Amino acid sequence: MLDLAIIGGGPAGLTAGLYATRGGLENVVMYEKGMPGGAITQSSEVENYPGIKEVVTGMDLMAAWPEQCMRFGLKHEMVEVVRVSRPEGLCFQVELGDGTSVTAKSVIVATGGTPRKAGFKGEEEFFGRGVSTCATCDGFFYRDKEVAVIGGGDTALEEALYLANICSKVYIVHRRNEFRAAPSTVRRVEENEKIELVTDVVVEEVYGDAMGVQGLKVKRKSDGEEIDLPVPGVFVFVGYDVNNGVLKQENGSFLCDVNEWGEVVVDLAMKTSEEGLFAAGDVRIMAPKQVVCAAGDGANAAIGAIAYVEHLKRENLC
Amino acid sequence: MLDLAIIGGGPAGLTAGLYATRGGLENVVMYEKGMPGGAITQSSEVENYPGIKEVVTGMDLMAAWPEQCMRFGLKHEMVEVVRVSRPEGLCFQVELGDGTSVTAKSVIVATGGTPRKAGFKGEEEFFGRGVSTCATCDGFFYRDKEVAVIGGGDTALEEALYLANICSKVYIVHRRNEFRAAPSTVRRVEENEKIELVTDVVVEEVYGDAMGVQGLKVKRKSDGEEIDLPVPGVFVFVGYDVNNGVLKQENGSFLCDVNEWGEVVVDLAMKTSEEGLFAAGDVRIMAPKQVVCAAGDGANAAIGAIAYVEHLKRENLC
Repeated sequence: MLDLAIIGGGPAGLTAGLYATRGGLENVVMYEKGMPGGAITQSSEVENYPGIKEVVTGMDLMAAWPEQCMRFGLKHEMVEVVRVSRPEGLCFQVELGDGTSVTAKSVIVATGGTPRKAGFKGEEEFFGRGVSTCATCDGFFYRDKEVAVIGGGDTALEEALYLANICSKVYIVHRRNEFRAAPSTVRRVEENEKIELVTDVVVEEVYGDAMGVQGLKVKRKSDGEEIDLPVPGVFVFVGYDVNNGVLKQENGSFLCDVNEWGEVVVDLAMKTSEEGLFAAGDVRIMAPKQVVCAAGDGANAAIGAIAYVEHLKRENLC
Repeated sequence: MLDLAIIGGGPAGLTAGLYATRGGLENVVMYEKGMPGGAITQSSEVENYPGIKEVVTGMDLMAAWPEQCMRFGLKHEMVEVVRVSRPEGLCFQVELGDGTSVTAKSVIVATGGTPRKAGFKGEEEFFGRGVSTCATCDGFFYRDKEVAVIGGGDTALEEALYLANICSKVYIVHRRNEFRAAPSTVRRVEENEKIELVTDVVVEEVYGDAMGVQGLKVKRKSDGEEIDLPVPGVFVFVGYDVNNGVLKQENGSFLCDVNEWGEVVVDLAMKTSEEGLFAAGDVRIMAPKQVVCAAGDGANAAIGAIAYVEHLKRENLC
């Protein structure tokens, strides 16, 4: 019987493990089938994690975390979690990919999310070297330079507005002539002098060299015209998959409330609608998708889990 | 005219400045009349800030922050802020201690809070060397040791329960025989085998040597009996002052909603009830009072301020 099962080994999961074990919880396991570190380990440059003043790779940023976070007894199991359920109404059941399952008094879901790929040539090759899915993280690296944003929804347009504060020019590259974003956002984009719309196009490729991206080639759908945008930065916002699969029950419902995009609904204490179940990091609603925010969530959720488990012990509930 | 005024220079204010300037805001000033760093700089040992695996002093933990956070244009002004108001309904006015005032499009309040002193002999002398006001921060340093908690309210009792998960014994030292805490919390405390109540007493002194605290002397009020508690750790929870003074208007009301304890009400985006005004760190409701959480708040609030200022520019509102 675990005091706490943590699903996911990024900044949120690791910090939750640090706080939970240091706060006295016993039998705390972090389930992460890969190496701990999370999505940030794919970034080539990070300079906005407070306290680390050098520009470091995401791998370097996270290098010290596992040792620090596991020093107080957190265990890491490299196994996939298939599902978290609560069959008896009180204890959680964590079903693992190897067919076994474990019982836990409390659970923190810190499984993050995955930006969708647009699927053009060079997207994978240059990811983290000019292709980005995070304007807050990487926009500053293109200060006073030109960038392209790919996408036509709310996120794409909002991130384009963010980038327009920093970059000299922002091309919004979209396959249709209309945007799916809120009308007020579309109006702000249209009225922004730094933003140029490149619509009705398909992205053919991102090209570059060993130093990174040098440009983007697109083709207009109506007349086949080839357009070359010689930008060093390409931001892709064509959708986002919240990694909420472990919360999906056999009947298709979720173990706790999620919003229309599948993000886990939490309050300021990272409590979900299911008592004893917490969410932290990019899997939750309104996540700023920053390492320091995810880590803060993890600490916050762990403090809640400690209080919950203490309460359970007294009541002999689980 | 500032894009953003940040009130307070702890982890929340510094991180807000980092994110705001790196995100393209101009004329961002952090008002902090002392040295930046916040309350954590009074701690002698920190080991739970993710990414810093060594045990460091609070001063050392924060040493790298100002340079990193001011690298993108954040300015620090060492002047006291007297009040933030919004006389015209749109722009904020930041009234300074020197009698001048500055106009700002948006404001982040990150002024923190101050734990009250109990007022016994040795409390100041041993603060950070055995006397603490944060169980989450310092409880682990007393693992399998005995500690004393001073106070009788909800916070004191909840923190005592937290410490009972880690320490071998927790004395709750309280001046009355009754506790002001919620009945369910009192019951959990009374039923916890590791907790011993020492009530109807006044604290006479905390004593120790150059290495830190060695014990606590209290006197029973009813019969004058002197009691010696030879504990290396003393946690004081006798009240907490939220530093919300800058939000108090001339008529005594607050610029935005605060709760019954004066904590600033925010949502998950750190927005207050006043548009364009954000709160971050220990000044807000439900703050976990951890450096990483305050820093996450600061990033979160800055991202909101950037979007708000971009919106204002378009509307020419301020």
